[in-house]
Amino acid sequence: MELDFVRWLTRQPAADPRVAVGIGDDAAVLQIPANRQLVVTTDMLIEGSHFELEHHTAEQIGRKALAVNLSDLAAMAAEPLAAVVSLSLPRSQANSALARGLSSGMTMLAQQFDCPVVGGDTNVAAGPLAVSVTVMGTVESDQGWLRSGAQVGDRLLVTGKLGGSLRGHHLDFTPRVAEALQLARDYQVHAALDLSDGLALDLSRMITASGVGAVVDVPRVPISPAAEQMAHESGKTPTSHALSDGEDFELLLVVAPDEAEKLLAAQPLACGLTDVGEIIAEQQMLQRDALGETAPLAAEGFEHR
Amino acid sequence: MELDFVRWLTRQPAADPRVAVGIGDDAAVLQIPANRQLVVTTDMLIEGSHFELEHHTAEQIGRKALAVNLSDLAAMAAEPLAAVVSLSLPRSQANSALARGLSSGMTMLAQQFDCPVVGGDTNVAAGPLAVSVTVMGTVESDQGWLRSGAQVGDRLLVTGKLGGSLRGHHLDFTPRVAEALQLARDYQVHAALDLSDGLALDLSRMITASGVGAVVDVPRVPISPAAEQMAHESGKTPTSHALSDGEDFELLLVVAPDEAEKLLAAQPLACGLTDVGEIIAEQQMLQRDALGETAPLAAEGFEHR
Repeated sequence: MELDFVRWLTRQPAADPRVAVGIGDDAAVLQIPANRQLVVTTDMLIEGSHFELEHHTAEQIGRKALAVNLSDLAAMAAEPLAAVVSLSLPRSQANSALARGLSSGMTMLAQQFDCPVVGGDTNVAAGPLAVSVTVMGTVESDQGWLRSGAQVGDRLLVTGKLGGSLRGHHLDFTPRVAEALQLARDYQVHAALDLSDGLALDLSRMITASGVGAVVDVPRVPISPAAEQMAHESGKTPTSHALSDGEDFELLLVVAPDEAEKLLAAQPLACGLTDVGEIIAEQQMLQRDALGETAPLAAEGFEHR
Repeated sequence: MELDFVRWLTRQPAADPRVAVGIGDDAAVLQIPANRQLVVTTDMLIEGSHFELEHHTAEQIGRKALAVNLSDLAAMAAEPLAAVVSLSLPRSQANSALARGLSSGMTMLAQQFDCPVVGGDTNVAAGPLAVSVTVMGTVESDQGWLRSGAQVGDRLLVTGKLGGSLRGHHLDFTPRVAEALQLARDYQVHAALDLSDGLALDLSRMITASGVGAVVDVPRVPISPAAEQMAHESGKTPTSHALSDGEDFELLLVVAPDEAEKLLAAQPLACGLTDVGEIIAEQQMLQRDALGETAPLAAEGFEHR
């Protein structure tokens, strides 16, 4: 089984100058360009918590396991370098189709984002399917976007539209890697993170890291069509879906007011950029309605359990 | 739970100049010294396949999950840089003691090998405990030891003693990182790997990668006391344990004959170095007995299923 999975993983475009040694030795050996730092992130998806084998294809799961990690790289404005994968295949379903599907979904995204899979460890065990991916990228030294750089008066921008991810977006989202690299090249970003657990919860983490507060202009939050649809059934408002559903994998960006003006005028990203609020000094999180009234905003969102 | 585990992981000596950004952001940021390549390896340990929570402590499991990866770095003669960890904690036992024990066992070894844990992802799921560790190291450009460098006439050396690992060595072994770095500095090594699945099986992989064959001088294979003990009960010979038990996590080194002479005379390692055979042109694996008679050696060893 291991050999097969590894063989499928290695069916990738050969001769990547960054990969000195790929799959097949005790470890992979990678070339790091001069004056760049290494950026590393890891995420594990587990059947029953993050996906269901009855409802999701192996390709979708393999793709998502890599995509969530690429989204973390995007949040640092890092360029993808390579990935390694550890699998635990459930003994009851440890068949070629499952391993091949995972590999195929992952490899397609790896090619799209120029992020070859250079190592893997495959296991067969009693228990749910678990896919653990570590992605490495690089960033020009000390140019990575952190969560801790938000400054009082800065504007809060988000890419794309939020909410309703469970309707499909959580499986087919595009990690905002290209968008992040474009913004990092042309604009000054003070802080960033990727929205994995919902704007409310993720923003609370950012302001904690930065030692500031924030006001979200709720009527401005861009709502996805899926969130509108879900609201018809859930009894919650579309906005509440947009704030708390999670798995948006859009970027939350913090920029100076004049930089925000430039960005909103230029709208350089196809996915769109929306101003949703501002950074304030008082260390609390507020929501502001259409009338300008503010109220506390709870740090509630999606937490996998 | 996640916050707790991450907090324990961060209880490590602060201010490592290689770690620009540690745990707490979307990704870690690491400094790579100039003229060095990145070496990356990943391994997952799963309850029921690699350990049993009834028989092994959380500390032992956490330690081993990092140690097996450090052993892979040693096999490349790479210097440890940092590690990231993904956990799936079984819902039935997702208590602080388990997470804290894993973290503590891992952190102790991380400190010993100067390999800080810079990122993690903790999950609670139905299913066995799974610990996935990715370790990064660095090596001077193009100086990493590969499996593919064995040349006809070269000698096969092993560190330490082999076999009987299940008696305890598989939990408390010392990854041969320091030994590898010392040898890489002072000697010329053509090829190397770490013995995870037993000398016979791992050697078969090396000769395949190098396109050569090998003869193992069976009476010379260094046998651990644990292998001797196990042989009393198993009905197998101590040598058979030493060749096939696996989880030795010793190094198999391939060096030119004159270099082997120097190494064996100098015996620079406290764990010892033993000449166990030679590389031959014909692509087969042989065992040679005390009388000089040769017979095929089967590529049998330990494979986790």
